[in-house]
Amino acid sequence: MLGLMQQRPLLLSSLIEYAERYHGETEIVSRLLDGTIHRSTYRQVAARARRLAGALRRLGVGYGDRVATLAWNSFRHLELYFGVTGAGSVLHTVNPRLFPEQIHYIIDHAEGGYVFFDLSFIELVEELAPRLPHVRGYVALCERHEMPAVKVPNLLCYEDLLAAENEEYDWPEFDENSASTLCYTSGTTGNPKGVLYSHRSQMLHTFVAMAADVMAVSARDSIMLIVPLFHANAWGLPFAAAATGAKLVLPGMRLDSESIYTLMRDEGCTLAGGIPTIWLNLFTWIEQNRERLNLSDIKLTRVLSGGTAVPRSTIEKFQTLFGTYLLHAWGMTETSPIATMGSLLPKHAGYDLQARYDVQALQGRSIIGCEVRLVDDAGKELPRDGQTVGELQVRGPWVISGYFKGEGGQVVDQDGWFRTGDVAAITPDGYVQITDRAKDVVKSGGEWIGSIEIENLAVAHPAVHEAAVIAARHPKWQERPLLLIHPKPGAVVTKDEMLQFLSGKIVKWWMPDDVVIVDALPHTATGKLLKTKLRQDYGDWLERHSVDARAQA
Amino acid sequence: MLGLMQQRPLLLSSLIEYAERYHGETEIVSRLLDGTIHRSTYRQVAARARRLAGALRRLGVGYGDRVATLAWNSFRHLELYFGVTGAGSVLHTVNPRLFPEQIHYIIDHAEGGYVFFDLSFIELVEELAPRLPHVRGYVALCERHEMPAVKVPNLLCYEDLLAAENEEYDWPEFDENSASTLCYTSGTTGNPKGVLYSHRSQMLHTFVAMAADVMAVSARDSIMLIVPLFHANAWGLPFAAAATGAKLVLPGMRLDSESIYTLMRDEGCTLAGGIPTIWLNLFTWIEQNRERLNLSDIKLTRVLSGGTAVPRSTIEKFQTLFGTYLLHAWGMTETSPIATMGSLLPKHAGYDLQARYDVQALQGRSIIGCEVRLVDDAGKELPRDGQTVGELQVRGPWVISGYFKGEGGQVVDQDGWFRTGDVAAITPDGYVQITDRAKDVVKSGGEWIGSIEIENLAVAHPAVHEAAVIAARHPKWQERPLLLIHPKPGAVVTKDEMLQFLSGKIVKWWMPDDVVIVDALPHTATGKLLKTKLRQDYGDWLERHSVDARAQA
Repeated sequence: MLGLMQQRPLLLSSLIEYAERYHGETEIVSRLLDGTIHRSTYRQVAARARRLAGALRRLGVGYGDRVATLAWNSFRHLELYFGVTGAGSVLHTVNPRLFPEQIHYIIDHAEGGYVFFDLSFIELVEELAPRLPHVRGYVALCERHEMPAVKVPNLLCYEDLLAAENEEYDWPEFDENSASTLCYTSGTTGNPKGVLYSHRSQMLHTFVAMAADVMAVSARDSIMLIVPLFHANAWGLPFAAAATGAKLVLPGMRLDSESIYTLMRDEGCTLAGGIPTIWLNLFTWIEQNRERLNLSDIKLTRVLSGGTAVPRSTIEKFQTLFGTYLLHAWGMTETSPIATMGSLLPKHAGYDLQARYDVQALQGRSIIGCEVRLVDDAGKELPRDGQTVGELQVRGPWVISGYFKGEGGQVVDQDGWFRTGDVAAITPDGYVQITDRAKDVVKSGGEWIGSIEIENLAVAHPAVHEAAVIAARHPKWQERPLLLIHPKPGAVVTKDEMLQFLSGKIVKWWMPDDVVIVDALPHTATGKLLKTKLRQDYGDWLERHSVDARAQA
Repeated sequence: MLGLMQQRPLLLSSLIEYAERYHGETEIVSRLLDGTIHRSTYRQVAARARRLAGALRRLGVGYGDRVATLAWNSFRHLELYFGVTGAGSVLHTVNPRLFPEQIHYIIDHAEGGYVFFDLSFIELVEELAPRLPHVRGYVALCERHEMPAVKVPNLLCYEDLLAAENEEYDWPEFDENSASTLCYTSGTTGNPKGVLYSHRSQMLHTFVAMAADVMAVSARDSIMLIVPLFHANAWGLPFAAAATGAKLVLPGMRLDSESIYTLMRDEGCTLAGGIPTIWLNLFTWIEQNRERLNLSDIKLTRVLSGGTAVPRSTIEKFQTLFGTYLLHAWGMTETSPIATMGSLLPKHAGYDLQARYDVQALQGRSIIGCEVRLVDDAGKELPRDGQTVGELQVRGPWVISGYFKGEGGQVVDQDGWFRTGDVAAITPDGYVQITDRAKDVVKSGGEWIGSIEIENLAVAHPAVHEAAVIAARHPKWQERPLLLIHPKPGAVVTKDEMLQFLSGKIVKWWMPDDVVIVDALPHTATGKLLKTKLRQDYGDWLERHSVDARAQA
């Protein structure tokens, strides 16, 4: 017997409608590419999102059609978040920091009809356009007078498109399981794979983001969105902000510490979201400028961080500098991304700060709606005792069921469990402690670097017999790639030669920080590289050798 | 195009599974019928709910079958909440305070196969049983040695049923739109009508209950559940408690102020939910016992109240006595029940307490997921300007689409709007101000006078325990407000004193034409003022007493 409650679909358009109606004057603050501050409101964002929806219809972008963005965090990108999804089309946020080859693959694979781009990506768009047959037009996110001379077919101006429409547009109703956003993971093997979110999954994720034990987003928040809009729905923060009427602060492309600090200070930010590297840099900058700063200007009550493990020192720094609670989270593009969140339990009330930091240093606690479990190599479930380590699996209505176009094949088992590739322990209270990375991945400042891709390039060198890339610990970026080379018999190869060989074939920040020439590489019984052994032996290589990170260069 | 996220159904069994897994040791504290305190945990509640599910299966209670309860707030009733719904059957919570005739109608109408009852309802059950042909058995919520000699067919013992089962039971998966709970509204006209909730509606309601701007239920809460489990899912608190692992305190049938006070104190309650009458009584009792109480023992950070408008004096009392924020909510059985919630906006941060109480005295603010609007008599939408008054309508996935068995016919319009029967204004920020029930409005010479606002002002008088304003027939103005006052024990108040007290606080023509001092005011079974009875008894008061209309003066 079915209940007799209303069958209204959960649609993302309801969020911007709500924000417009009751929080219409709440500000959306953006730092533009030229550094100036732009002020908008939910009323304006909503009205312009409706104009955008009208423009999409005029351009022939329909239900389910993909719209790609190459853009930083700004009001226009936020308008795309609501305008594209509200209209029933799919917002495909592309990570512009990827190598152009990957970006080309991703946009082409998604088969989107239009690419909306910030002016900082003119060269990139020009380079890609000739090889993107599905793309019918390129929309520059600017005013008419700012329009660049980009050599792409069908170049359009965002503000012109909006000006040609009016604000009278009713958001359509459709199946809540309809696709809403699309985000590719830069996986370790093979090509990036797309995660296709639905209105339902994003709405449920929004509800949970508002929960007191999750992000507790409220109307009284001013949210600094450092996490890019192109990263897994910006951790759900834009949707949760609209759902509560919270103020949003969008820092654009200026992610240097001074820009972030002043914006957080000037806009009274109470909540910020960003990867650990951002905070490490911020603390270094604060140390250097301590005497001219009044730290009590910073009103942050909590900071959300994840993507890679947050160092305990960062947790402590936030507490001691600003009295800010660091919410340590774990999740993936495949989990929308919130899977766990580091809120406290009643028993922690009496803890001193040092003991509390130990709790906060775990990767968050299991929350309702996203199940987590551990399994061994044979797929047998392991106990949640805080000691036993196994592969982390997740399940729930905002967890992936499969990748876009079926890439990667079956990725969940018959009970719906998705293999995360992360190795972890889970305490009886549900705190997850990631003890190891997915085997092949290097996480540099929150960004994944695929080791196999670099290895494949390296072995293309005539003198190389075998190559391995491992994650070596790094004081600033947490991890940087270290390349180990086993030369062919009789062949000689040097570090400089290898780096020169790779140069231009991968993005700069993927370049290994060092190259070690070895006599042999260890293997498993089935002939696979034994990376655990390599990490044991070389994980501290960069620390021992004080090699400068290429990414800094 | 559909998204590629997991299609896991939203089921209530996931809540108790979560609570058992990660908050297994968290306490569920019950006051039993004999006054003693019983301590259970989520682990025990979950294990016993599974045993109960096994017992239901053995009794032949299947998917969609109704199971009725006549019970106070206790651990066994909580087990029924999770055991019955988790198994796919429908928990039908019956209000035992209704007249036996209504209770008979409701149980018979719902066609449930079993009635689970507390021992305080032995006589009621004996009286009803001969006329309940659908009921196959009666389960006493007690131990074997407590079994009463009740003359009903097929009398069973709850603890015996559970003892015969084991804890190995896997909650079934089914359509999330399946019926979960059933609750009848005690309408003032006609027969009660059933609201049939679904797992989906209750799960979405649970998510929103956890939101920072709604109830902000968290693992760190100890929740005093004064609102009965038979009232509209106890405002969703049992489900939200399990979803977060919050401690639950269940006061049983002892709702006298001393029992409530000591339980809140001893169990460190941080959140309490109850109707305004409970709080009025509590404050009177505290006044009488002030010298022997240490009010700082009370740890309440917030109190949830609604059902009828919360007087401003109650809001102020909570703040000044305990530093407790009163969350003023509005909702109905038909809205699951949360529709609005009185959280604050950034602009209220600078308000002094008196100005803040004015905000809190409104019936809460519109929240995401439950839309509210006003319409005039012709169905035309009215502005949300805080001034214009119209009938309140609601819409959303936890709002009714129709009553059980189609009673009452079509209750939502083609756009899904449900007519609440309440008359209200809505501010631009979304705060709802209920000015009256549509049927309680005083229509004086064609103008509406809101009875609730006058009542709220009257109870602020120190000698007043409770106040009611009704429409009394008037030869010239058709209707004029009549104020009925129930003074506090030992207090004396006169008509002139009351009118002087109100003078200047409301417009002249809203002034009651007469004031009647009474020994008590009648209430419905759900604690609301029974205005139909008052209108029967006092509707002709002005005609009989030839009182001059104040409005003429």
